[in-house]
Amino acid sequence: MTMNMSSRHWLLARRPTGNLALTDFECAVRPLPSPQEGEVLIRVLYLAMDPAIRGFMNASGNYASPIPLGEPVRGMVLGQIVESHSPLLSTGQLVWGFGTWSEYVIGPAAQYQAFVPAPGIDLAAYTHALGTIGLTAHYGLLDIGAMHEGDCVLVSAAAGAVGSLVGQIARIKGAKRIIGIAGGSEKCATAVQRYGYDECLDYKSIEDLPAAIAKALPDGIDVHFENVGSPLLEAALAHLAKNARIALCGMISGYNTVATAQPTAVLWNLVVKTAQIKGFRATDIIAQKSRAASILEEITGWVQQGRLVFDIDQRAGFESIPAVFNELFSGTNHGRLVVKIASL
Amino acid sequence: MTMNMSSRHWLLARRPTGNLALTDFECAVRPLPSPQEGEVLIRVLYLAMDPAIRGFMNASGNYASPIPLGEPVRGMVLGQIVESHSPLLSTGQLVWGFGTWSEYVIGPAAQYQAFVPAPGIDLAAYTHALGTIGLTAHYGLLDIGAMHEGDCVLVSAAAGAVGSLVGQIARIKGAKRIIGIAGGSEKCATAVQRYGYDECLDYKSIEDLPAAIAKALPDGIDVHFENVGSPLLEAALAHLAKNARIALCGMISGYNTVATAQPTAVLWNLVVKTAQIKGFRATDIIAQKSRAASILEEITGWVQQGRLVFDIDQRAGFESIPAVFNELFSGTNHGRLVVKIASL
Repeated sequence: MTMNMSSRHWLLARRPTGNLALTDFECAVRPLPSPQEGEVLIRVLYLAMDPAIRGFMNASGNYASPIPLGEPVRGMVLGQIVESHSPLLSTGQLVWGFGTWSEYVIGPAAQYQAFVPAPGIDLAAYTHALGTIGLTAHYGLLDIGAMHEGDCVLVSAAAGAVGSLVGQIARIKGAKRIIGIAGGSEKCATAVQRYGYDECLDYKSIEDLPAAIAKALPDGIDVHFENVGSPLLEAALAHLAKNARIALCGMISGYNTVATAQPTAVLWNLVVKTAQIKGFRATDIIAQKSRAASILEEITGWVQQGRLVFDIDQRAGFESIPAVFNELFSGTNHGRLVVKIASL
Repeated sequence: MTMNMSSRHWLLARRPTGNLALTDFECAVRPLPSPQEGEVLIRVLYLAMDPAIRGFMNASGNYASPIPLGEPVRGMVLGQIVESHSPLLSTGQLVWGFGTWSEYVIGPAAQYQAFVPAPGIDLAAYTHALGTIGLTAHYGLLDIGAMHEGDCVLVSAAAGAVGSLVGQIARIKGAKRIIGIAGGSEKCATAVQRYGYDECLDYKSIEDLPAAIAKALPDGIDVHFENVGSPLLEAALAHLAKNARIALCGMISGYNTVATAQPTAVLWNLVVKTAQIKGFRATDIIAQKSRAASILEEITGWVQQGRLVFDIDQRAGFESIPAVFNELFSGTNHGRLVVKIASL
């Protein structure tokens, strides 16, 4: 069936150093191999841009192995099964999961999540609140962070895709006070006005962030959802409430720029407050199929009831992928960056 | 009843800078005030020397408030109730808990743990395996570290009081492989020969500690019991197995000397391995009365059966307290340092 089929791919041409250059990528057309037993062939409709992918472009990889040079860049895809060699999925089904910057991807069926679009919900929503982003926010806040009613919550990258949902889910679940951290007054305004944060601290303009956190959360932080890393993490660690939980998100930036404190000094706060830091990754949640399904069902209800909003900055065209990806790092996007490359 | 009674105390005369000097302390005789409602008066029999107390001598305190200048130094005491103004404890009962370097201490009854010496067990054991040290080791390894049968365990300060018990409890509970870290060949030999570690790494003589850990635990670390801090903590973080748990112990040293890695870089491993670090303190375990009692019951059985050994380096004389405390930092002791200041 895949006989004579080919696909365009964006390959990693060389390892980026610092900022990305468009010449780090190369578009190539390759014939499609036949899917093996257990694999599926997917026609990609949407490609979502995740900052974590930047880490996979480095020689040291990240939490996954590095993308080999000359091979397609990895990314979250949403698409339709064209051919299935697995009993898990069948032709015509819609799925999302980790794939590559390609028009067609082939991969193990188990790595994809099938879905039936819920009434009134746009297909692209499954690249955001109804996909990995929603799972990450919900699981990170409630399972890893064990947020309970009445908790005081701090969220870094509050205006980002994950952060925008964490604030709203904290509200729905009865948090007492929800404080965001974001870069720039526009992002902070969005976090408060659109995502319902009580307050959002602009780390770019606030000189003493720890003091601002202490003022915004005088009783300390019960749950901190960390998307960024140093030095925000240290600032949060300095203001934990007793028995605090820090959810260390897989979407955390790999760029460590301003870190100054020593790990022991920083982590000592965990002893003082009998607190914990727990790392987690979206891939682990997805693997817990029944937990993931029940989370997505709850989120679907909230979206249908208008209680949870999310923003997608949708672009179009396979050609534009590297340029759109680059926007993640200039911050010119307004919502989660998704590229539509084909229609259903 | 306390009328006209007085007690000798070792006061903190000045805040030590770096190494302790005997002139940092001053012995004084003070009349005993009357215990208030809810308080007890205790005649101290044993005083135990904990490194954590060193932190309380600094102006910044530690996890507790600093010891005020001119006031008695705090420490773990074992003694007998002389007078009780609380229904919780009665005259003649033996207790242990946090007190001061004093012949007599007065404090809230709730802060002391009453005990009846088990047959065949020496009184001093309640300053070690049957007191805070045993609770810390057991609770830290099994509750905080959630060690299960078949786990690979790494313990820093393996020849120290807590570490000596952690290794043995890990063995009793069926750990697959138990590796210690200690400073010096003598301590390492003790950890292996007396406390049953499979292997003990001498951080003073090993050049590449992370490589040595990787060799000793090729499948990674499931549970790390951290007593020390940087740079051992970073070495452990670099070799976690998936879903690893790090128990960050309240006895951790406050001295941060060689730390080099940045917190974000170090903690990134928690995401990679979906691992966690959890801080805890002996005081929190003690407050969980029924859990503490069941732990101590289990430990008592092991000691009576000869399955758990512990070493006390017992000294005598109230006068010697500061000098003995100082030995903690020169490492000349062989076992937990305890000063006997009176007989039952």
